[in-house]
Amino acid sequence: MPVEPIPTKISVDLHKPYHEQPGLHTRWHPEIPFYCSVEPGEIFKVECFDSSGGQVFNTDDADDIVKVNPLSIHCLSGPIEVKGAEPGDLLIVDIQDIQPFPDEPWGYTAIMDPKKTSAFLNDKYPQMQKAIWDIDGIYASSRHIPHVKFPGFIHPGIIGTLPSYEMMNIWKKRESELVDFHASLDDGCTVAALPNPEGSYIGQGVDPALAAKVAEEGVRTVPPREHGGNIDIKNLSRGSKAYLPIYVKGAGFSVGDIHFSEGDGEISFCGAIEMHGIITLKLGIIKNGMKDMSIYNPVFIPGNVTAHYGPSRYLTFQGISVDDDGKQHFLDAKIAFRQAVLNAIEYLKGYGYTGEQAYLLLSAAPVETHISSIVDIPNSCVSYSIPADIFDFDIMPKEGGPVIQPNMGKTAFPTK
Amino acid sequence: MPVEPIPTKISVDLHKPYHEQPGLHTRWHPEIPFYCSVEPGEIFKVECFDSSGGQVFNTDDADDIVKVNPLSIHCLSGPIEVKGAEPGDLLIVDIQDIQPFPDEPWGYTAIMDPKKTSAFLNDKYPQMQKAIWDIDGIYASSRHIPHVKFPGFIHPGIIGTLPSYEMMNIWKKRESELVDFHASLDDGCTVAALPNPEGSYIGQGVDPALAAKVAEEGVRTVPPREHGGNIDIKNLSRGSKAYLPIYVKGAGFSVGDIHFSEGDGEISFCGAIEMHGIITLKLGIIKNGMKDMSIYNPVFIPGNVTAHYGPSRYLTFQGISVDDDGKQHFLDAKIAFRQAVLNAIEYLKGYGYTGEQAYLLLSAAPVETHISSIVDIPNSCVSYSIPADIFDFDIMPKEGGPVIQPNMGKTAFPTK
Amino acid sequence: MPVEPIPTKISVDLHKPYHEQPGLHTRWHPEIPFYCSVEPGEIFKVECFDSSGGQVFNTDDADDIVKVNPLSIHCLSGPIEVKGAEPGDLLIVDIQDIQPFPDEPWGYTAIMDPKKTSAFLNDKYPQMQKAIWDIDGIYASSRHIPHVKFPGFIHPGIIGTLPSYEMMNIWKKRESELVDFHASLDDGCTVAALPNPEGSYIGQGVDPALAAKVAEEGVRTVPPREHGGNIDIKNLSRGSKAYLPIYVKGAGFSVGDIHFSEGDGEISFCGAIEMHGIITLKLGIIKNGMKDMSIYNPVFIPGNVTAHYGPSRYLTFQGISVDDDGKQHFLDAKIAFRQAVLNAIEYLKGYGYTGEQAYLLLSAAPVETHISSIVDIPNSCVSYSIPADIFDFDIMPKEGGPVIQPNMGKTAFPTK
Amino acid sequence: MPVEPIPTKISVDLHKPYHEQPGLHTRWHPEIPFYCSVEPGEIFKVECFDSSGGQVFNTDDADDIVKVNPLSIHCLSGPIEVKGAEPGDLLIVDIQDIQPFPDEPWGYTAIMDPKKTSAFLNDKYPQMQKAIWDIDGIYASSRHIPHVKFPGFIHPGIIGTLPSYEMMNIWKKRESELVDFHASLDDGCTVAALPNPEGSYIGQGVDPALAAKVAEEGVRTVPPREHGGNIDIKNLSRGSKAYLPIYVKGAGFSVGDIHFSEGDGEISFCGAIEMHGIITLKLGIIKNGMKDMSIYNPVFIPGNVTAHYGPSRYLTFQGISVDDDGKQHFLDAKIAFRQAVLNAIEYLKGYGYTGEQAYLLLSAAPVETHISSIVDIPNSCVSYSIPADIFDFDIMPKEGGPVIQPNMGKTAFPTK
Repeated sequence: MPVEPIPTKISVDLHKPYHEQPGLHTRWHPEIPFYCSVEPGEIFKVECFDSSGGQVFNTDDADDIVKVNPLSIHCLSGPIEVKGAEPGDLLIVDIQDIQPFPDEPWGYTAIMDPKKTSAFLNDKYPQMQKAIWDIDGIYASSRHIPHVKFPGFIHPGIIGTLPSYEMMNIWKKRESELVDFHASLDDGCTVAALPNPEGSYIGQGVDPALAAKVAEEGVRTVPPREHGGNIDIKNLSRGSKAYLPIYVKGAGFSVGDIHFSEGDGEISFCGAIEMHGIITLKLGIIKNGMKDMSIYNPVFIPGNVTAHYGPSRYLTFQGISVDDDGKQHFLDAKIAFRQAVLNAIEYLKGYGYTGEQAYLLLSAAPVETHISSIVDIPNSCVSYSIPADIFDFDIMPKEGGPVIQPNMGKTAFPTK
Repeated sequence: MPVEPIPTKISVDLHKPYHEQPGLHTRWHPEIPFYCSVEPGEIFKVECFDSSGGQVFNTDDADDIVKVNPLSIHCLSGPIEVKGAEPGDLLIVDIQDIQPFPDEPWGYTAIMDPKKTSAFLNDKYPQMQKAIWDIDGIYASSRHIPHVKFPGFIHPGIIGTLPSYEMMNIWKKRESELVDFHASLDDGCTVAALPNPEGSYIGQGVDPALAAKVAEEGVRTVPPREHGGNIDIKNLSRGSKAYLPIYVKGAGFSVGDIHFSEGDGEISFCGAIEMHGIITLKLGIIKNGMKDMSIYNPVFIPGNVTAHYGPSRYLTFQGISVDDDGKQHFLDAKIAFRQAVLNAIEYLKGYGYTGEQAYLLLSAAPVETHISSIVDIPNSCVSYSIPADIFDFDIMPKEGGPVIQPNMGKTAFPTK
Repeated sequence: MPVEPIPTKISVDLHKPYHEQPGLHTRWHPEIPFYCSVEPGEIFKVECFDSSGGQVFNTDDADDIVKVNPLSIHCLSGPIEVKGAEPGDLLIVDIQDIQPFPDEPWGYTAIMDPKKTSAFLNDKYPQMQKAIWDIDGIYASSRHIPHVKFPGFIHPGIIGTLPSYEMMNIWKKRESELVDFHASLDDGCTVAALPNPEGSYIGQGVDPALAAKVAEEGVRTVPPREHGGNIDIKNLSRGSKAYLPIYVKGAGFSVGDIHFSEGDGEISFCGAIEMHGIITLKLGIIKNGMKDMSIYNPVFIPGNVTAHYGPSRYLTFQGISVDDDGKQHFLDAKIAFRQAVLNAIEYLKGYGYTGEQAYLLLSAAPVETHISSIVDIPNSCVSYSIPADIFDFDIMPKEGGPVIQPNMGKTAFPTK
Repeated sequence: MPVEPIPTKISVDLHKPYHEQPGLHTRWHPEIPFYCSVEPGEIFKVECFDSSGGQVFNTDDADDIVKVNPLSIHCLSGPIEVKGAEPGDLLIVDIQDIQPFPDEPWGYTAIMDPKKTSAFLNDKYPQMQKAIWDIDGIYASSRHIPHVKFPGFIHPGIIGTLPSYEMMNIWKKRESELVDFHASLDDGCTVAALPNPEGSYIGQGVDPALAAKVAEEGVRTVPPREHGGNIDIKNLSRGSKAYLPIYVKGAGFSVGDIHFSEGDGEISFCGAIEMHGIITLKLGIIKNGMKDMSIYNPVFIPGNVTAHYGPSRYLTFQGISVDDDGKQHFLDAKIAFRQAVLNAIEYLKGYGYTGEQAYLLLSAAPVETHISSIVDIPNSCVSYSIPADIFDFDIMPKEGGPVIQPNMGKTAFPTK
């Protein structure tokens, strides 16, 4: 019984600009042409660029971070037609395996330009910088953030189906209204990434008129939405299954933004360990699954192979919905989360990390963020749990306080 | 070597009104007199009323829920002086054990009066009702929500230290400002529970002038704050350690609001399995721990004995920050959480549960709520994971959709 | 709805000799009279003496160990009639809870008289001694074995049903034949505990003729057998379910030999943390379950609440079936296990423990013993995994070798 | 910073006989020439044949099994010189990754010729047959054993260092003595695999005199021994570290016998999921580690990424040391294990599996085998725990007994 190798449905050349290659796109739109087709149940591989589409390098400076164009991020592989899929069905995405490219065993976490992104602590840590992670088997460690090592819950940041016009228009309308509202407040806050022709790309050999239409109309890939999208769920790793709504005939599945690891929240925006990667997939269909099971948003079941730590090996910080200025907010889980993160960073600084190192570490390591309570007015309580076993020194509280560690290094900065 | 039984420092009589008993209080204030003292390292027991202070009963109607006075909830046991504790120290709270009263092996979860509380789905499920849980060894099951059974992560909803005047005044100021702001909006929203003499209680044999002063000035017990308070962290169970800031000489530790189990978020407000209980504690002190370790909010380390489920035995729902009317909000984790909960409830209704049953179940069962991403503008993504093993039928998605289960019963309603 | 307290079906007075109290027995025999009855589904408590029946005390010498009479060990609580149970049915034993007596929060692990017992390392560690464990909430620690602390998988060492005459006679026959065979070898080895009237006890108010008959015929409680018996499975803890064969009308269930914790193998014979305890039970029946499910030996399902450690926090030793003298044995798992234990003890001695301390520690702590391979002639491979998190120092291998720890104390010895 | 691909130190051609390829050997001997060298800390890949060296195929008959020559099994990749390693040091084996060959995603489990092997149930299941497993991402399933699917704890069955002459001679002496003893008993039992020139192979380009000497003197690879060897520990998976004694300058590390998964005990001899595979390794040295840490047998630390199941999702069978004929043995853990396995097989047959299917399944799936007690004369108790979540039907005990499943298929048999 001869065995066929698993076919690679989309290949990329990491050393060539992505916008010269087919099977890649940077927008969501109903009319992006399918690049290839699969049968339900077929096993296949897809190669993916990192989220920046190759704009970041394995170096010790952050000049590349300075130059990243956020309009062209999320270079997705796809869309892939799934034979027989129709609107109203559910797409079963069976994640068989994910690996780094064998000759690119590294990734990065970065603080991007705060004027162009929405990182969680942009105001506290505005300086662009990055940390490179070396991938050593199942583990990551960093020359820029010493004394930590952890296994990856390797996962795709983005999986999604093509929206229908109806769905796309709902997205555009609600996001525009939000932008308009904040414009009326004149709060200077970038609250959504609206359609923008700059950086739009939908593959090679496409009718230029269609490309222009998608550039004009296509929605951006930044947020998670009803079709999946940038869901950034750290546990969607090898062996997991996701169920996504289908809006167009053939589904139009795309994937990208591979992360070697991520902390809940992906707080530094470019906050996971971003990497190029190869994903092995099997897609299936549940006919009429949306209505039959009332599933109109993604649902998923993790694989049963993961890193696990004893429960007593987590150190948990808390935050409440009072902001940095001491102002009380009403059950605001985002502010509570922010305070929990700030509490954890201050604690880790006691061991000699810079704030930026701690920030990037917590973005990338398998940190758990729970909404513990959200009804005890006016404060919600968010708990933020760090696995102590990822450090090679003891981080547990003790009499006398923390001990500064030797050789703490530093993150990679811009050269000028 | 004769063994001394573990002393009970605070006893309660569950069949007598709490406001006739010493060692109990319903407000936080620097001058509430210590009821008793312990040495650091001493092991002792404390008996606690349920959060309502005995206003709810093991019955099949919800007349008691209708009558609950929210101004007198959170009947706490304490305050306890810890010898040698001084402001700036950290209090180590070592939770040795928690048990139901042997002759009261039950608890409840309820939908309270939406006009008086801040439950997560007050608008969707405004009708008062309750579910009684029978505690059977380490497991809870309910005649009002059939087909589920799960072990408790039994924990105190509230642990805290007495605030200083300075701290208390900060709390009062910021919470008043929030109330004033919402009053100016005239949005009809109850956003904080400000001081209110009604229902204030600080124990027996207290100078009436002091009791009146505390009634006037004391802050309410509803929210979690920097000293701990109503933190509602479901994993703070047997074998856990918490570290709390100390603001007054002697610390003034109090505990209450015992939960047999709770889902992350405690969504129905009276949302855990509320019960009377007995907690065994050991308290310790880390001198100058607040400054030495930059700990100004509670930190905790769970015990290593917990219920655990295989990762692949969780079904995970998602929500994004788009509200029920389709309006887009900016990275609002509370709205994303709400959508995830609503998605889960709709799914479970497919098996025959009423919305209220599903709502109370998810409030009480060990459901995990993660903030998966909070930087992907404009949507945050909250994932909401339900352990499938708590059901006696299969809840995993499948072709053909869910199967209605037999004998689904109903929750307890008011009789008129 | 008034709640009835859980009834205690068998009470013991720990300060009175067990052989003056009803509801206790030290032999298995079909005619031991039922002490009490329960309905299937009824929840009840049973109080139990420690395995020695009160012969060991919380002291710092081992004079009590010297005096223990092994003919009177395993003071079991029972037998309990289960209404409706008939031969061929299965008994479902639902272990709801197990607790120490509130005023006896201690246990012990001991090296007994090697001439009277079958401990695993009798030849290496023949000197009688003991370690007392202090039970502190869910954790045990010992003044006789410093620097360790671990939560208990609290469980009954013995659960069983009364044998039929047929079953009892099979047991007696096969065990006698083994004794006879070894007698013929004249190897001086005590290979089984045959019936012996000395120390036989079947409760109060029993017809003396019956007591004498049981003393003569009754089988000893030392081994596990088809009915359960001394199974010593460390994971049979709170929330577990066991299924036992039923041989007599009414089943005749007994329980005892409570352990706070145990390492796989219970190597020092009196090797768990032996303690007095109170068990809460619910019994059920599966009619004709033995034949229907081909269950002729105990089957069990653990509870889902346990201590757990990250997999990478175990240090695993191996042993092969070559004995201490270098002699090769054929796939002998017992010898392989012995070598693994000896390897672990030698390793731990590097940190300053005496061999006896390490031996008693490994007997009592939640150590895992796996038969890794048993087909690779001539060696079986047994792996022996120690959770590193139970130590307050680092036991992982490192350059330079182990560091002797301070204040290692010593075990309790006989005074003369 | 250009990234070098991880070098492959030993390549194999799966479609060519192994005995025509370099870097492979089938015996252990001090003078087998190093095939290649690595520096401590260097990361490299090694390709490995399956244990049979390519004698078994992905087919639906077992004709290949009939023909396997056990004298030529365990085709190991190596030996590899580790620069700087000297006798007395410990070799740290850091298992970075293990993968199937991308175009060979399958493995097998087989019942071999009982006259030539030592499988655990040779007497019960003597007929040669096999099951093919399809590897689908991280999961295995089998067309020959339907209704099961489980993730692999992928691991090398064999890792070892070259023995010194002294060590090799100890092994040969003790194994010969065992063979002689059994020969004197005339029990017809094959108890050890002694040196045998047939099937000996030590690579290409070797001095024929040396090859002949090794063929004559070299020890067989069947058992685990002090240097590691055929240890078959199912948890030695990705991210694990092993520590092996070093006996010769340069260590001489070899690896092979890759398993996709294995049940504790590997009971059917060819009992794991045997497969061709590629292992990524990093080797290190602890100078003088053997004496410093009293490590004279392998020690290992698993990685923290594994499949895990909730504790309550295991069904546990027991066995005691009474053999199939009812004869009592003395604390014999091997017999107790055998009884536990037989009990489990009988139970599974109730669902429609043949005995052989159940036997091969339990050999290959992640089944746990614990020695629960080994001091309760005359019976040891072995517990045998099967994860219920690997089945797509419910295997838990219930009233009415098991239900026969549809389409149970059959294993692959010899065609004549």
